[in-house]
Amino acid sequence: MSDRYGELVQSPLGKKVAKNLGLPMPIKLDRYEIGQPVIRGEVAFGTAFGGDELVASIIQNVLFDLDAKITTAEHLNEKLTDENAKFKVAIFDATNIKDVDGLKKVYEFFHVLARRIKSSGRVIIIARPECCTGGDVGFAIAQRALLGFVKSVGKEFKKGITANVLYTQIGAEAHLEHALKFFLSAKSAYVSGQPIYIKKSDGLDEFTVVDFDENKPLKGRKILVTGASRGIGAAVAQVLARDGAKLYCLDVPQNLADLQKIAGNLGGYALPLDITEANAAEQIVKACGVLDGVVHNAGVTRDKMLANMSEDKWDLVMDINLKAIHTINDYLIKNQGISDSARIVCVSSISGIAGNLGQTNYAMSKAGVIGLVEATAKQFKGTNQTINAVAPGFIETKMTGMIPFAIREAGRRMNSMSQGGEPVDVAETISWLLSPKADGLNGNVVRVCGQSLLGA
Amino acid sequence: MSDRYGELVQSPLGKKVAKNLGLPMPIKLDRYEIGQPVIRGEVAFGTAFGGDELVASIIQNVLFDLDAKITTAEHLNEKLTDENAKFKVAIFDATNIKDVDGLKKVYEFFHVLARRIKSSGRVIIIARPECCTGGDVGFAIAQRALLGFVKSVGKEFKKGITANVLYTQIGAEAHLEHALKFFLSAKSAYVSGQPIYIKKSDGLDEFTVVDFDENKPLKGRKILVTGASRGIGAAVAQVLARDGAKLYCLDVPQNLADLQKIAGNLGGYALPLDITEANAAEQIVKACGVLDGVVHNAGVTRDKMLANMSEDKWDLVMDINLKAIHTINDYLIKNQGISDSARIVCVSSISGIAGNLGQTNYAMSKAGVIGLVEATAKQFKGTNQTINAVAPGFIETKMTGMIPFAIREAGRRMNSMSQGGEPVDVAETISWLLSPKADGLNGNVVRVCGQSLLGA
Repeated sequence: MSDRYGELVQSPLGKKVAKNLGLPMPIKLDRYEIGQPVIRGEVAFGTAFGGDELVASIIQNVLFDLDAKITTAEHLNEKLTDENAKFKVAIFDATNIKDVDGLKKVYEFFHVLARRIKSSGRVIIIARPECCTGGDVGFAIAQRALLGFVKSVGKEFKKGITANVLYTQIGAEAHLEHALKFFLSAKSAYVSGQPIYIKKSDGLDEFTVVDFDENKPLKGRKILVTGASRGIGAAVAQVLARDGAKLYCLDVPQNLADLQKIAGNLGGYALPLDITEANAAEQIVKACGVLDGVVHNAGVTRDKMLANMSEDKWDLVMDINLKAIHTINDYLIKNQGISDSARIVCVSSISGIAGNLGQTNYAMSKAGVIGLVEATAKQFKGTNQTINAVAPGFIETKMTGMIPFAIREAGRRMNSMSQGGEPVDVAETISWLLSPKADGLNGNVVRVCGQSLLGA
Repeated sequence: MSDRYGELVQSPLGKKVAKNLGLPMPIKLDRYEIGQPVIRGEVAFGTAFGGDELVASIIQNVLFDLDAKITTAEHLNEKLTDENAKFKVAIFDATNIKDVDGLKKVYEFFHVLARRIKSSGRVIIIARPECCTGGDVGFAIAQRALLGFVKSVGKEFKKGITANVLYTQIGAEAHLEHALKFFLSAKSAYVSGQPIYIKKSDGLDEFTVVDFDENKPLKGRKILVTGASRGIGAAVAQVLARDGAKLYCLDVPQNLADLQKIAGNLGGYALPLDITEANAAEQIVKACGVLDGVVHNAGVTRDKMLANMSEDKWDLVMDINLKAIHTINDYLIKNQGISDSARIVCVSSISGIAGNLGQTNYAMSKAGVIGLVEATAKQFKGTNQTINAVAPGFIETKMTGMIPFAIREAGRRMNSMSQGGEPVDVAETISWLLSPKADGLNGNVVRVCGQSLLGA
């Protein structure tokens, strides 16, 4: 959908007017393009108290791999004497901060950088989750405090700059690589203000991906996308095809024409099927065989105030958005419908997190999805299978295009990016979670919301 | 502080104008008054699949104790044929909902009630936390889904109606009484859209409170309140005195005059002390002896964008809002400065949860407070001591009165109550957490924010 205001304030005159009136000034966010470097500028890298050796070496390897030009903390002030010195990325290893006093290191590093981060820049802090603080209250305080800092930075820095904390379990450092490559890149354009939890994979310690191709990270992976004929689902199918997946595009038989067009264009297989049918899961297995990935994207809204909500509106939303996912997962898990290293990604919603007026049914279904992901993630402990959710905020689609203008404008601007996200932003996040290298991510609910103000 | 708009729309003409323009229409919330009944109207009580026997008997005992007039689900439709039938409370035991289909019971109960809840009414759902679902994914889904429903209901019902979920661990049902009495009453006026986690007390199973006086729930309890000379702290002191506590009011020596006035009026003890002094904790123990409760309320803001934030602004906020709490707690715990059934309550903030522009220091300190509460709560496992936090949203104080008008108005209206809270709302929540009967509450972060839109 077109964001005319967003285009207007990027014109020379519009920019001037908007600035004078104090209006939001969304910038055009960097997005992933084949051939473009992953990091489009220089990197500032700091640590508190030397940081963690393993974390530091992984960060350095990743940056080296990406040909990044790095300035470390000890050379930062010198570098900044050049008034034109700017950074695309500021990354800080805070894992060694074990008390309140130590948090001063965060201030020192980011204070001088605050005006020196470029548009669509990245702020990334590596931290430890509470389970790694060993009952040391000071350590737990410091690590938890980082999230409050990062969320404030996301709101302050603006200019399309994202800020996130990667809470990395001790022993899970190897999984940082996959997370860093996403958060450093333009693929994470609309993910900001989030804690990401990176865990040890509990399965085979030696699970390694053979023949991994950075340009085709999903090569050879058989992945099912539900609701693939339009909107976010269609964008997911496109990104997964770009990333090399062997695609199964599912949608209701009524959408067969659109579905076949999309599947056809992407070299995928069109699977017209109503997921609420009693034997839907069986039909999926019959059509797809053993899947390496499932994206539960199909979903509907039927908004009404609870007082006016009919039973069929309630049932339809609950059946499609929640019950079908549970039924299908249950069948696939019990009947070897997914592979040993399968990745399941469910689409939740900010509504599921925050609730929404007129959406008791939708919000309940999407909150249930979070419960499903958390409970199934526990079930997957000790395997190489994972399950995660994405929770989109305001995404520019045909669906949101039908929201009345004033409400749509409010939804669009009430986030740190001052703009709605694109379906591709959700799709990139999903593809990242589907990667065979994503075994350190299990049980996460990743908001793709540009740090929406709406929340808990 | 005065909310003139709020007063205006309550006038006959103002109401008409606001309604026609679609402006927010805050109502005057019920608040606790001595002599008033706890529940000011009738109660609708429902269960799904018979509910849990123990939960049901506790709900019924509490309602009986409070002389409530109850309509159970089987008589609800009959009762509602009377067009004037309205309820002050709708309470639903959802603990027996174990799959998505079962959630229909929630719809059936609340759909018919949606237009029949009175102003300042209460929606309360009793549920099970994930730890009690025993790996049953369907059960976990259903229980988690309830929160999405309740958050939507809070946003829909308006009229000062609160909606909350009490996630009650199996075996912790006895603690429901204390939680219910708070959520049924006007004391919880500004707590909405929240999950509350009620746990088994891990300490002496037979911990019982002798001589408990419902009208003086804190009788004989020695409680310290920091930052007691003004704002929220002064309101806390007042409520705790009303509830029978033996009060120690602490504030910096510069505020001695105000402090003495407040402590004097409340029959408390004034303790002029800077909590950031090296031996502050020792001085507290010397002055107070063994405490039954500590309210870490003292806090300051020093807002600046990070680029412009001076070191002293950073240090001051971190030292007062976070480091002092940690240092004092640590000393009190290690030196028997708190009793076996002590209750610690820390004041966090919505800023600590969501971050805030211009508040990297404040938000970081308040996020750290959440880390402190969570880590210390684990330390307290196996004891009868507890620690919890409250996280105020927009509260009408001198401090928020100084926010520029337009921003203040936005902050005030962006919640399900369309108004700021009063300091007493935070104070009532704190007093509830301080009760000797609050041993089922440990590690909670209770937002007192009228279901603020601002969130994660």
